[in-house]
Amino acid sequence: GVNPDLASERLAASFSVELLTASLDGGAERTRGRRAVVQAIESDPVFSQENQYFQSQNEKYEAAVRRAVYLQKKIREMGWTQNGPEVQDICRCLSGDIALVLHRVFMRSISVLGSDKQIAKWIPLATDYQIIGSYAQTELGHGTYLQGLETTAVFDTATQEFILNTPKISAMKWWPGDMGRSATHTVVFAQLYVHRKCYGVHPFILQIRSLEDHSPRPGVTVGDIGPKMNFQHTDNGFLLLQNVRVPRENMLSKFCEVQPDGTYVRWGSQKINYFTMTSVRISILSEEAIVPLMKACTIAIRYSAVRRQSKLKPGEQEAKILDYQTQQQKLLPQLATAYAFHFINTYLHELFNKGYQDIQAKNFDSLPELHAFSSGFKALITQHCTSGVEICLRACGGHGYSLLSGLPSLYTRIIASCIYEGENTVLLLQTARFLIKCFMAASAGQPVPPSVTYLSSVKSGKCPAKDKSDFLRPEIYLKAYEQMAVRLISSSATKLQHLIQSGVDKHNAWNQCTVQLEKAAKAHCHYITVKNFVEAVENLDNKAGIQKIMKHLCDLFALHGIFSNVGDFLYDGHLTAAHMDLVTASYLDLLAVIRKDAVPLVDAFDFTDKSLSSALGSYDGQVYQRLYEWAQKSPTNQQGNPAYEKYLKPLLQNTLSKL
Amino acid sequence: GVNPDLASERLAASFSVELLTASLDGGAERTRGRRAVVQAIESDPVFSQENQYFQSQNEKYEAAVRRAVYLQKKIREMGWTQNGPEVQDICRCLSGDIALVLHRVFMRSISVLGSDKQIAKWIPLATDYQIIGSYAQTELGHGTYLQGLETTAVFDTATQEFILNTPKISAMKWWPGDMGRSATHTVVFAQLYVHRKCYGVHPFILQIRSLEDHSPRPGVTVGDIGPKMNFQHTDNGFLLLQNVRVPRENMLSKFCEVQPDGTYVRWGSQKINYFTMTSVRISILSEEAIVPLMKACTIAIRYSAVRRQSKLKPGEQEAKILDYQTQQQKLLPQLATAYAFHFINTYLHELFNKGYQDIQAKNFDSLPELHAFSSGFKALITQHCTSGVEICLRACGGHGYSLLSGLPSLYTRIIASCIYEGENTVLLLQTARFLIKCFMAASAGQPVPPSVTYLSSVKSGKCPAKDKSDFLRPEIYLKAYEQMAVRLISSSATKLQHLIQSGVDKHNAWNQCTVQLEKAAKAHCHYITVKNFVEAVENLDNKAGIQKIMKHLCDLFALHGIFSNVGDFLYDGHLTAAHMDLVTASYLDLLAVIRKDAVPLVDAFDFTDKSLSSALGSYDGQVYQRLYEWAQKSPTNQQGNPAYEKYLKPLLQNTLSKL
Repeated sequence: GVNPDLASERLAASFSVELLTASLDGGAERTRGRRAVVQAIESDPVFSQENQYFQSQNEKYEAAVRRAVYLQKKIREMGWTQNGPEVQDICRCLSGDIALVLHRVFMRSISVLGSDKQIAKWIPLATDYQIIGSYAQTELGHGTYLQGLETTAVFDTATQEFILNTPKISAMKWWPGDMGRSATHTVVFAQLYVHRKCYGVHPFILQIRSLEDHSPRPGVTVGDIGPKMNFQHTDNGFLLLQNVRVPRENMLSKFCEVQPDGTYVRWGSQKINYFTMTSVRISILSEEAIVPLMKACTIAIRYSAVRRQSKLKPGEQEAKILDYQTQQQKLLPQLATAYAFHFINTYLHELFNKGYQDIQAKNFDSLPELHAFSSGFKALITQHCTSGVEICLRACGGHGYSLLSGLPSLYTRIIASCIYEGENTVLLLQTARFLIKCFMAASAGQPVPPSVTYLSSVKSGKCPAKDKSDFLRPEIYLKAYEQMAVRLISSSATKLQHLIQSGVDKHNAWNQCTVQLEKAAKAHCHYITVKNFVEAVENLDNKAGIQKIMKHLCDLFALHGIFSNVGDFLYDGHLTAAHMDLVTASYLDLLAVIRKDAVPLVDAFDFTDKSLSSALGSYDGQVYQRLYEWAQKSPTNQQGNPAYEKYLKPLLQNTLSKL
Repeated sequence: GVNPDLASERLAASFSVELLTASLDGGAERTRGRRAVVQAIESDPVFSQENQYFQSQNEKYEAAVRRAVYLQKKIREMGWTQNGPEVQDICRCLSGDIALVLHRVFMRSISVLGSDKQIAKWIPLATDYQIIGSYAQTELGHGTYLQGLETTAVFDTATQEFILNTPKISAMKWWPGDMGRSATHTVVFAQLYVHRKCYGVHPFILQIRSLEDHSPRPGVTVGDIGPKMNFQHTDNGFLLLQNVRVPRENMLSKFCEVQPDGTYVRWGSQKINYFTMTSVRISILSEEAIVPLMKACTIAIRYSAVRRQSKLKPGEQEAKILDYQTQQQKLLPQLATAYAFHFINTYLHELFNKGYQDIQAKNFDSLPELHAFSSGFKALITQHCTSGVEICLRACGGHGYSLLSGLPSLYTRIIASCIYEGENTVLLLQTARFLIKCFMAASAGQPVPPSVTYLSSVKSGKCPAKDKSDFLRPEIYLKAYEQMAVRLISSSATKLQHLIQSGVDKHNAWNQCTVQLEKAAKAHCHYITVKNFVEAVENLDNKAGIQKIMKHLCDLFALHGIFSNVGDFLYDGHLTAAHMDLVTASYLDLLAVIRKDAVPLVDAFDFTDKSLSSALGSYDGQVYQRLYEWAQKSPTNQQGNPAYEKYLKPLLQNTLSKL
């Protein structure tokens, strides 16, 4: 049965959970489809994650490979399309705990960068796992800075081959997923040399293991990079190459080619490559950042409605911890953030779909803006989701620290998202570069992309709010955010100009402004997120109170941002200390309002118990029973105790006589 | 050999590392002693942590038990005193990776709470591990709130025994270390009932396992709670009791007793119990929070002086990542924090030693202040050290995410310190309660404890700074901190009074102020930390530039605190926006200054390579070689690949013919 404390929360819901779920899914039909797929997967023992918290790295890897192979079979049987909605639903419920993910990147890179002939040769083989691919870009010595890669590919006209080498230890490929133990092939990135001239980094298809016995090919040293904070199921690998030869035809050649005589030809634009990288950053946000935050909120909020601890008043029953203001202040802003990011994610996907259509029509105008969007939002969203998951973990006290809560694995996985696909600080500085450029253009009266027109239109002024309820008016807080973002961008630009004018060279000057530039880029993305949330709420129809509760969450998200960054808003006097008291009052009021709907708001994310894999977060709230039941299955209770026999027994054997 | 990039950093040191190390140790002789002990331990294979990143929970537990038993033998052989400096040095280099730690708490609780007779009976047995103890306080349903414990101990006059029970699942003991698989005995906390009257929570010595074969005693169900985010080497346990009887003599009875006829007698003061709990909180800070932060700084800063990535200027060599302002902004404030906490830790230990002497002399006056200190600083220090370790981990990019960096295990362990020994939010609110009480007393002209006299003496006013160099004057920034702390405390007190005067009952009013009260408590502790750092620097003699570099670190710690909490300082106008520009300028200047000494400043912490266990952080900076060497030892490279045989081979077997 459902824990009565949790049941009572649901009875008090101010809106229909089912309608909100359908609204988040994009329609009730889509919800039904998703649930059917999830049920099919979860009832299949191959996809069971029951023992995940007890498995070694080797066991996790084996289970993940099994799932990947089986899923492919299932997709074929069911007639689902690759990357169709069903496969996305499956990934959401498997929490990415599946192997051969980089195989998909291998295929995508061939599809995007390969010639028609290359596509015709390799894609059918890869589709059916007749080869297993990987994507070998990152090296021991170089990550985000791709130009610095040290692997070389020297063209040998005599044999019409490229000779691949890792000339020093830092040039070794390091991190590529699926490469350590699974892949037979990889797309390897190397500096291309023809007749001693370097043409920069290019991709080559390389076979790394025998198709007969899986042993490394001659000249190839390959293996697993060992244990990580998470992703134990993935065989991230290393790859050393010593004079490994691949035929001329294996350089991916949609955009450039080395001809038989060594002539290097390039056609088309390199920009499309950036668009691929850019769109990958956006494509991971939902599954790798927003969904984990939603799961963490679900676990922590349900647990906080069940856990009772201490008394609000003497003589009363112990209180639900969700009734403490400090607990609300930890969890409810994370819940609002999860919703804010759901809406900005939808917006970003629409933007990128439109961008893709423009590019198909050979219009590349929106690329710089899209690049700035993908960099900045990847950084903002992964950063906030990571700290949100950590807050949820800590808010569950000791039990949150048990792997059985599901929270530690969410955290150890999501923190990687701040580093992969471009390290967040580097990405924010790319967004900052775009913003500074736009700010200069706007100041000079030149046109700027739509997302940054506010840079030229904002006039500074005092906030007109007089009462705490004024801070529930979106035009009031949007104005504050807008003005704050403009000020941070303009003051960074001013400092940069001053330094350059005072004789500092422009590269050093840039470095000396980067702490402030990073902050400016965050402020811009934060402002856009609030603005988009406001618009999304306006566009919701008001069925069953959904718009009303979403408006509360939007207000909370906005006011929490002000409450947490008071200095940025006070600095130029747009808001005063008196305003801050009103913001604080309104913000604390909102916590109490949203607390009432907190459980229904996480129920609406519609995660199954199996996909949460949490003893604390299940729908029925039977947390203590489940912790006890699951703990008993641990290998620590199943595999005897050799330490007792070896080390403790000898000490204890004569004790009885002394007692 | 040492990586030349790291060697050059050391040549440029502005001070003597050896002198700074001796100063941190409290003298050169102490440094020599520590190094001798560390060397003795590290050369012993029992204490090798070489395979720690590859071990399962069961393997870690076994190794930790072995170490504990062996260490005890070693202590006896060497004639070291329990808890003497040598044992502390060993714990520092083992990073707490040892079993039977709760056995020591078992002994301490008997020593403090037991009668002379109980001490005489149990302590000699425990000293030689003839029994293995644990400390069973926390339950599934109750942690920090001890009054809520649900285990019962009913006195049976007929048999002169207590009957122990866990009447419901939430009453099960859950988390006690050393209990899951090792302990034969435990001190169990239970609600005492005599003749149906409840006397509250009391401690009882209970045998849980047979001394002959280690099987659970009748009525006892005991086991391991399963995997956690870290502490895999510790057998945190669960304990269910069904009508388990212990003799009347087993209730710890220094302060109270149940007499044969059931008469309950209490003598002495309960306050001394609080002092024990309080002093435990202080005693863990160094090993569990500050040392891990120092290690993380050592790893991240050494790596950042070796790792080169991207170019500061076109045409130049790639730059050390430590030369980027954003990297300095991540790491150097953590370094300053580690030093600040080193000094406040020394201060807290002196305070508690003095407090202990007072208590021995039956003077309990300082207890409330000591309790407020221990609660607030435990929360502040564990919180800052945890986020500092996370920042260091993320600042090392992908390689920081590998377990081989040593950073993930530092993080997954230190985050527990925010929860155990009192959850941080609960602790900060206890400090806040003390501060509000003192503020009220001070406002009424009554005397207050020494640490809070500033609450009555501060007069608000404008900051007199005119130039960025003014913010390097401690009296300027101390005044800003002081005023900020007073304002946050006084405004919380005012809000609380207003609510009560407006008719809200005092418990609800308190809850409605807790977000602000928590902030006020942090501000108080932060202020004391800055003040103590300033005083510590003043007291350093100026040998070999140590005082100068410490002054820089102190300034950085203070200005980073302002830079990160701008709103709190701007709010009442003590600092203006123009001041903030000066603070920012001074703060960024300091980053560049301290960057020059960053490597020597972490070298001075004097960690051996073995105690860091980090492929990134070793003294010689050979990071890539070490990552590669260590990865090859991973079980993923040693134990074959059954997943290939089972799942991949069948897919690949016909591919060759198609290529």
